[in-house]
Amino acid sequence: MTKPDPSHVSLSLTVYLAGEIHSDWRDRIRAEAGDLPITFVAPVTDHAASDDVGVAILGEENRPFWKDHKGGKINAIRTRTMIERADIVVVRFGDRYRQWNAAFDAGYAVAKGKSLITLHPPDLTHALKEVDAAAMAVAETPEQVVAVLRYVVTTHP
Amino acid sequence: MTKPDPSHVSLSLTVYLAGEIHSDWRDRIRAEAGDLPITFVAPVTDHAASDDVGVAILGEENRPFWKDHKGGKINAIRTRTMIERADIVVVRFGDRYRQWNAAFDAGYAVAKGKSLITLHPPDLTHALKEVDAAAMAVAETPEQVVAVLRYVVTTHP
Amino acid sequence: MTKPDPSHVSLSLTVYLAGEIHSDWRDRIRAEAGDLPITFVAPVTDHAASDDVGVAILGEENRPFWKDHKGGKINAIRTRTMIERADIVVVRFGDRYRQWNAAFDAGYAVAKGKSLITLHPPDLTHALKEVDAAAMAVAETPEQVVAVLRYVVTTHP
Amino acid sequence: MTKPDPSHVSLSLTVYLAGEIHSDWRDRIRAEAGDLPITFVAPVTDHAASDDVGVAILGEENRPFWKDHKGGKINAIRTRTMIERADIVVVRFGDRYRQWNAAFDAGYAVAKGKSLITLHPPDLTHALKEVDAAAMAVAETPEQVVAVLRYVVTTHP
Amino acid sequence: MTKPDPSHVSLSLTVYLAGEIHSDWRDRIRAEAGDLPITFVAPVTDHAASDDVGVAILGEENRPFWKDHKGGKINAIRTRTMIERADIVVVRFGDRYRQWNAAFDAGYAVAKGKSLITLHPPDLTHALKEVDAAAMAVAETPEQVVAVLRYVVTTHP
Amino acid sequence: MTKPDPSHVSLSLTVYLAGEIHSDWRDRIRAEAGDLPITFVAPVTDHAASDDVGVAILGEENRPFWKDHKGGKINAIRTRTMIERADIVVVRFGDRYRQWNAAFDAGYAVAKGKSLITLHPPDLTHALKEVDAAAMAVAETPEQVVAVLRYVVTTHP
Amino acid sequence: MTKPDPSHVSLSLTVYLAGEIHSDWRDRIRAEAGDLPITFVAPVTDHAASDDVGVAILGEENRPFWKDHKGGKINAIRTRTMIERADIVVVRFGDRYRQWNAAFDAGYAVAKGKSLITLHPPDLTHALKEVDAAAMAVAETPEQVVAVLRYVVTTHP
Amino acid sequence: MTKPDPSHVSLSLTVYLAGEIHSDWRDRIRAEAGDLPITFVAPVTDHAASDDVGVAILGEENRPFWKDHKGGKINAIRTRTMIERADIVVVRFGDRYRQWNAAFDAGYAVAKGKSLITLHPPDLTHALKEVDAAAMAVAETPEQVVAVLRYVVTTHP
Repeated sequence: MTKPDPSHVSLSLTVYLAGEIHSDWRDRIRAEAGDLPITFVAPVTDHAASDDVGVAILGEENRPFWKDHKGGKINAIRTRTMIERADIVVVRFGDRYRQWNAAFDAGYAVAKGKSLITLHPPDLTHALKEVDAAAMAVAETPEQVVAVLRYVVTTHP
Repeated sequence: MTKPDPSHVSLSLTVYLAGEIHSDWRDRIRAEAGDLPITFVAPVTDHAASDDVGVAILGEENRPFWKDHKGGKINAIRTRTMIERADIVVVRFGDRYRQWNAAFDAGYAVAKGKSLITLHPPDLTHALKEVDAAAMAVAETPEQVVAVLRYVVTTHP
Repeated sequence: MTKPDPSHVSLSLTVYLAGEIHSDWRDRIRAEAGDLPITFVAPVTDHAASDDVGVAILGEENRPFWKDHKGGKINAIRTRTMIERADIVVVRFGDRYRQWNAAFDAGYAVAKGKSLITLHPPDLTHALKEVDAAAMAVAETPEQVVAVLRYVVTTHP
Repeated sequence: MTKPDPSHVSLSLTVYLAGEIHSDWRDRIRAEAGDLPITFVAPVTDHAASDDVGVAILGEENRPFWKDHKGGKINAIRTRTMIERADIVVVRFGDRYRQWNAAFDAGYAVAKGKSLITLHPPDLTHALKEVDAAAMAVAETPEQVVAVLRYVVTTHP
Repeated sequence: MTKPDPSHVSLSLTVYLAGEIHSDWRDRIRAEAGDLPITFVAPVTDHAASDDVGVAILGEENRPFWKDHKGGKINAIRTRTMIERADIVVVRFGDRYRQWNAAFDAGYAVAKGKSLITLHPPDLTHALKEVDAAAMAVAETPEQVVAVLRYVVTTHP
Repeated sequence: MTKPDPSHVSLSLTVYLAGEIHSDWRDRIRAEAGDLPITFVAPVTDHAASDDVGVAILGEENRPFWKDHKGGKINAIRTRTMIERADIVVVRFGDRYRQWNAAFDAGYAVAKGKSLITLHPPDLTHALKEVDAAAMAVAETPEQVVAVLRYVVTTHP
Repeated sequence: MTKPDPSHVSLSLTVYLAGEIHSDWRDRIRAEAGDLPITFVAPVTDHAASDDVGVAILGEENRPFWKDHKGGKINAIRTRTMIERADIVVVRFGDRYRQWNAAFDAGYAVAKGKSLITLHPPDLTHALKEVDAAAMAVAETPEQVVAVLRYVVTTHP
Repeated sequence: MTKPDPSHVSLSLTVYLAGEIHSDWRDRIRAEAGDLPITFVAPVTDHAASDDVGVAILGEENRPFWKDHKGGKINAIRTRTMIERADIVVVRFGDRYRQWNAAFDAGYAVAKGKSLITLHPPDLTHALKEVDAAAMAVAETPEQVVAVLRYVVTTHP
């Protein structure tokens, strides 16, 4: 993989990497796309830090609901700012957890007119049919995602 | 439950009931809200009809992915038109299935500036924390949802 | 005050009456405008019902902050739906209470492109200068507000 | 407080600091956030200059109402341009003055889709319940505000 | 002129008639279009009432500037509400007066995505070239305007 | 085909039928959908009337370019108003003519957030791949289009 | 006039200078504001070049209407791009010519949410009352315009 | 062709060059405009790469429809991001192929408020009348397109 001739780069992009935080898919995308004029943004991927951010900064809560609520909102400041900035939103779904926040981000991004790329194993196809129906590309590997991004930003693919 | 004095009704609403299709929550909401000036809209709740709509109308597919894709898009015509029309979107999450489409609808509705009300049992609180953080009300029963709607449309609650 | 010749009515309006809930200004506007093709909408003006709506419907809270939060959000469903529907938003400021919600509604309405009319006694002029600067009319009496509305909806004022 | 590793910065922000002009909260935020890739913008905080700007530039007025009106509008050019540019709007409420302009800015920012953070002592909670209900975070100290901002712009909080 | 067969009417329209108030062009349009499903809205065409509305309702002013300002803003409530409602905006320019408000309305309407039709004598062509360049039709007579509207709302022109 | 039980109708729609004017596809759709709560709107389908409308109403032109220009703009008043009103835009492509206006309407509709349904014979698939990629359904017969619309507006398909 | 301390600059602006092209007001504004972080953009101020641009580039026309039309549209590409980019639009009205394009630009800018500053001699006040009513500042000299801009971009006015 | 005096450049532009991929028109525009502060963006012009991108990256398909569909969507990520970024969209129509995607891009761009310039030989005038009616300039040569762009970005044309 060689750095493309600058005259072949058509535009620079901001890409938001939403969803699953328990595998290395973001690192693989960043590594594979290292030569492209793309700024990747992402949520906080330290699970505990993300869960606790509300009470850690704004004070303890007795009820778990409000602990989650305060944390959910601070994470939303980050998430929505990033989606607003992004040209393309990649959402990764995995087998673990319910990942309703990933699907929420996907819906939010589509409604804001962003191009959605989903990334998930084929056995999730039926469960994700409405999300995939709204996507501009459905990938199974991080490398496919980067191949799409490379095609979008270079002039001679 | 008596029909409210018409002079106490301040405005009529359109409310979209998204999410779970395997329990009677929509019927309970419609019954409880029967006296209110609210038009309820909903997705097709016949699971098989919804799953098969793409191939049933537009022709068979060999690959399940494309069967789902064609169906998912026709359902999206319905869903997005309804969200666009709605003042308020209620999204029901239950224990069965992954319901990523429900979370997608919630994200889409919030990005379009609609008021979101979530309806789910308390044990889903942590999994739904980002969705609830975007909601204007988090209810556990259909009756609570109707109580909120009643408050919104009447002048003397 | 005679009902205007129907051929002189140019369009019908929806007007949201925001702000102070402790005086009879809304009743005076409704009475004075009784002959005009205007739908008036308003927040819940029963102070206790408005303050308690969150916990009354969605369950008790130990901390006053969350009681207020739940109530504030349900009231926001109503308020934002009404502002979205309104052509004109009238905001009344009085001497009692801080009425930050009234100023918040005014800012929200202006950002949504609604015509703002403020209604307040002249001794609040300096404190309200930024809000009045965003208003299309600054009135001191409900009757002045109705005179403006009458001018807007009739063809021969 | 050490400058974060550049590779840990996810995006740069513009933050508008609205509200109270009689305490040092803006300086405390700027100092605390000195290492972050954030551009802070603010209204003119010289009270007399802000009050007099209309007549100072555009000519004297006999009536205080029009003096305030001219000043209020010039300040609005600044305020709205800044809110339009901002990703996040922080609004500070204190005990002095009515601060209707602060609440107006909050409403304007929320309607424009900006993330709102409020900053006020806990005894103002009830009076600010509608504004707080629209906020993504409610802080009591400038340091908490910066902790939220730090979380939003860094990759390893 | 016969009433069109209802089955030939494709949609109903709201049309705002902006500009010149000293000739009978609006009456000619209304008469000619009497059989069409079009709601015509218009500014107040009583020159004195329009000029004086600010001080007549909201109180006298010493300076002519503020008298004009108060009136201009009340007229703007009416004008902007009507443009917002309209599908098509017709703006009439004549030889008398500078009619900057007519050109302002035209610019406002185009920016809001409304279809603009201009109506003026051919000798104003050069002076109006930027406004005409933004128009979907440039007419010389009210009858031409109605012919365009008739074409737009009927199925068999 | 029986009229659906009213309680099974979930919402009424406006559907714009764009594209080919030389076959009876619009009549077939209207007939097939006669029982549904759908308002169909369409361009003028009298080819000569559509081509000549500019000069017929606004005066002759020497150059064919300007004759086309004046006609194209009047047709655009109609087309854009209809697309703005529509929930769903159906675009029909046939073998005759270049039909660039049909593809233009499709692009315009998608950018405005309307659900697009394309209708064309399968041999045009490759030529229409970008347009079909933006569509929510790709139909080969008018009856399929109506089946999609029926699914969208009824509660028990 | 000294260059402001960089730490006192709160944000940089783009300002579009619309209207009159026969006096030196733009030069005076640029000179007076030379030290401020403001990018000024403007229409082509060479009257003949502006009038002839359509036919000069795209070919001659027999009818003056189409010559004007082609020129008016090319100028509109420039004007609308600049208004879209601008934070603030200054519109200058003078005694010569009808300047309907200046008023059109003002209306367009206001509808796009830009802050409008008008600049004109006081004897035009009554003729411009609707335009001034939509302005955030009404100036009589270029120096006043710059004083407003200086206030908007510096932290210690 | 000399590089313009930097003080004569009023703003920089992004221009999207859509349409025909079988002639050298893009190269001619880039060469002719080499001295202007314009960033040109374009679709992938390697016909085979563009046609095959979907299956090349995301996996083979049996049916040509889905091969086209996957490719069409990836191309749309690129196209829509570029249109969103562009100030001006130039669309080239030639004699070969149906070029429905070019007309689709034109419609999409106009609906997004971009200035459209069309480029085509005069014998396509009638077939393109609706597209030309929406354009701000209709050119026959790439050199004319650049002359328009030069006029838009320089201060002394």
